[in-house]
Amino acid sequence: MGKNTRIDSDMIGDIAVGAAFLGTGGGGDPYIATLLGREALDRFGPVDLVPLSALEDDAAVFMAAGMGAPTVLIEKLMSLDEADCAVRALERRVGRKATAIIAAEIGGMNAILPIAYAALRGLPLVDADGMGRAFPALQMNVFSLAGIACAPVALADEFGNTVMVESQSDEVAEKLARPVVTAMGASVALSCYAMTGAQAKSAAVPGTISAARTIGEAIGRNAASNKAPVARLIDALESVPLYHRARQVFRGKIVALSRETTRGWVFGRCEIESPDRQRLAVIEFQNENLVIEIGGAVVAIVPDLITIVDFDTARPIPTEALRYGQRVAVIACCAPPQLCTPTALAVMGPAAFGLTHPYRPFE
Amino acid sequence: MGKNTRIDSDMIGDIAVGAAFLGTGGGGDPYIATLLGREALDRFGPVDLVPLSALEDDAAVFMAAGMGAPTVLIEKLMSLDEADCAVRALERRVGRKATAIIAAEIGGMNAILPIAYAALRGLPLVDADGMGRAFPALQMNVFSLAGIACAPVALADEFGNTVMVESQSDEVAEKLARPVVTAMGASVALSCYAMTGAQAKSAAVPGTISAARTIGEAIGRNAASNKAPVARLIDALESVPLYHRARQVFRGKIVALSRETTRGWVFGRCEIESPDRQRLAVIEFQNENLVIEIGGAVVAIVPDLITIVDFDTARPIPTEALRYGQRVAVIACCAPPQLCTPTALAVMGPAAFGLTHPYRPFE
Repeated sequence: MGKNTRIDSDMIGDIAVGAAFLGTGGGGDPYIATLLGREALDRFGPVDLVPLSALEDDAAVFMAAGMGAPTVLIEKLMSLDEADCAVRALERRVGRKATAIIAAEIGGMNAILPIAYAALRGLPLVDADGMGRAFPALQMNVFSLAGIACAPVALADEFGNTVMVESQSDEVAEKLARPVVTAMGASVALSCYAMTGAQAKSAAVPGTISAARTIGEAIGRNAASNKAPVARLIDALESVPLYHRARQVFRGKIVALSRETTRGWVFGRCEIESPDRQRLAVIEFQNENLVIEIGGAVVAIVPDLITIVDFDTARPIPTEALRYGQRVAVIACCAPPQLCTPTALAVMGPAAFGLTHPYRPFE
Repeated sequence: MGKNTRIDSDMIGDIAVGAAFLGTGGGGDPYIATLLGREALDRFGPVDLVPLSALEDDAAVFMAAGMGAPTVLIEKLMSLDEADCAVRALERRVGRKATAIIAAEIGGMNAILPIAYAALRGLPLVDADGMGRAFPALQMNVFSLAGIACAPVALADEFGNTVMVESQSDEVAEKLARPVVTAMGASVALSCYAMTGAQAKSAAVPGTISAARTIGEAIGRNAASNKAPVARLIDALESVPLYHRARQVFRGKIVALSRETTRGWVFGRCEIESPDRQRLAVIEFQNENLVIEIGGAVVAIVPDLITIVDFDTARPIPTEALRYGQRVAVIACCAPPQLCTPTALAVMGPAAFGLTHPYRPFE
């Protein structure tokens, strides 16, 4: 995608499908967020997608996102007004107007909400994000890793109530924001990581909106290829340097499923049996899929990406849409390199989720 | 107390004893808060206590208080720095410096903390409060009843983290602030109800700091009277128009006690047996004592004041200091008239606490 790419109502569908894949089961269902995105693009016009490298050093880049439990986010899709309350509260607090919007995570609905919000405000969207995937906690991102302060964090609900969290520590900001999210009904708009263009350039995962579009186009029905959808998906992933080395690691039928929504997160596990009933894959998730074990051996583990897709269509299946009996394939691919440094792994690797397995890079 | 009363290190002890009585079991133990209060008065000098009527109409009156579960407040007494973070955050938000401090509640440690804070900032303290007693929820006060907005609510912990809650609804502000209190360790400093002098004069319960002092002096060991401490206490209450009609409604020994800290509050009940073992009084509390039943009949009920005191010394016993076997008297007295209107009862009467008994004025 060149410097002049504009996101319009047609393109948002592809980005949403790619974002659902990169959401690795979590991040909220982006298909539904596209309803909001299309409405915004239709009303306010297309959004300029600017490469990270094109940002001015003194740009005011604000993260705009939703926060909450995916199962609730789906039922209570945030409005644009809500997102506007959060960004404007942050603007008042830092005394600066946003000049560009950046996504918190390319995985799930938080890839789409910033598009809608950028359209509303007539601001460009940066072709980048803070995770290169989705993660269940606010501070699990490359901005925090680079020392960019998360706070002040502005939270807003659909009734115009706002909460501003201030802390030197990103972990504390998350800890203080999380119960507010629950009190606001488990779904809020937030804006935080008010940063300069120079900071964004030094820290963000580049090109991820474009990557989501490429992945979504490959999965889409109109893709110009005779290959099966899952094969097209693998090809697309291999074509994006950020997620290269992708593979179908399992296929079969979902034979067991447990999910629990607690403390604002969805915890659970999914068991998939191979067609010959000889092998069992077990996936554990906390909003996002964290680890897949096949026959007791770890095949891929967070921060590498593990996504369950429909076996026939390759469409990614979010955690909350998993059902007993579904025929699925499990695709794993490498995480962006920024997530795999020792420093990053301490924050977003297996131990950060209470897993005892060590991180081993996929493939 | 005249216009020129100054609160000094000696006087704070009497106010604390009176505030413990008016706390009706809750509000946090003011004896411990006096340590902080004395330190502040010694370091920064005495505090001017100004009658409500002496406030200028355009004064900037800020409420400063602590919020949390009494059992935790005791172990984690907030520092002056913490209180200062909350008030200064509110000053930044409303763009005005406080010119006077007012107490949220005269019951418990929130009668003392504002004295310490007023000393630190060299500000006068208003001889009034928002409850005339203590209540377990932020919005249960006469300011909210008068339509003065609770928000913005500034919360601060001992590490300098702050949270600013903004809502048109005081109930929502409470609902959003409460989980933050828990996340901050169940004990925070807060500042809210930024109001004008005119608003304070139209709404606050007047003379309550002085009333606490009068009650505390009567209970104190040096009281110049041959009467028993409990009788002196009753006399003192009868002398304050705000709390007139006071009576010892029961005496006996504590024979059963249950307490549970949950959702930031302490819920429980206390059973007291008469010396002849023929009668049983049951007191239910949510931070504060809510209702006393004797032989199954309601004798006093919230918002009227019900306080358990040591039978020999008349010293009030906070909920968290109740112990099996204590010999106690139960004193009841009338709530300030502002709390007993139909509008007030809807917010701070029996039904607001889930009690099914109707309100019947004490005596």
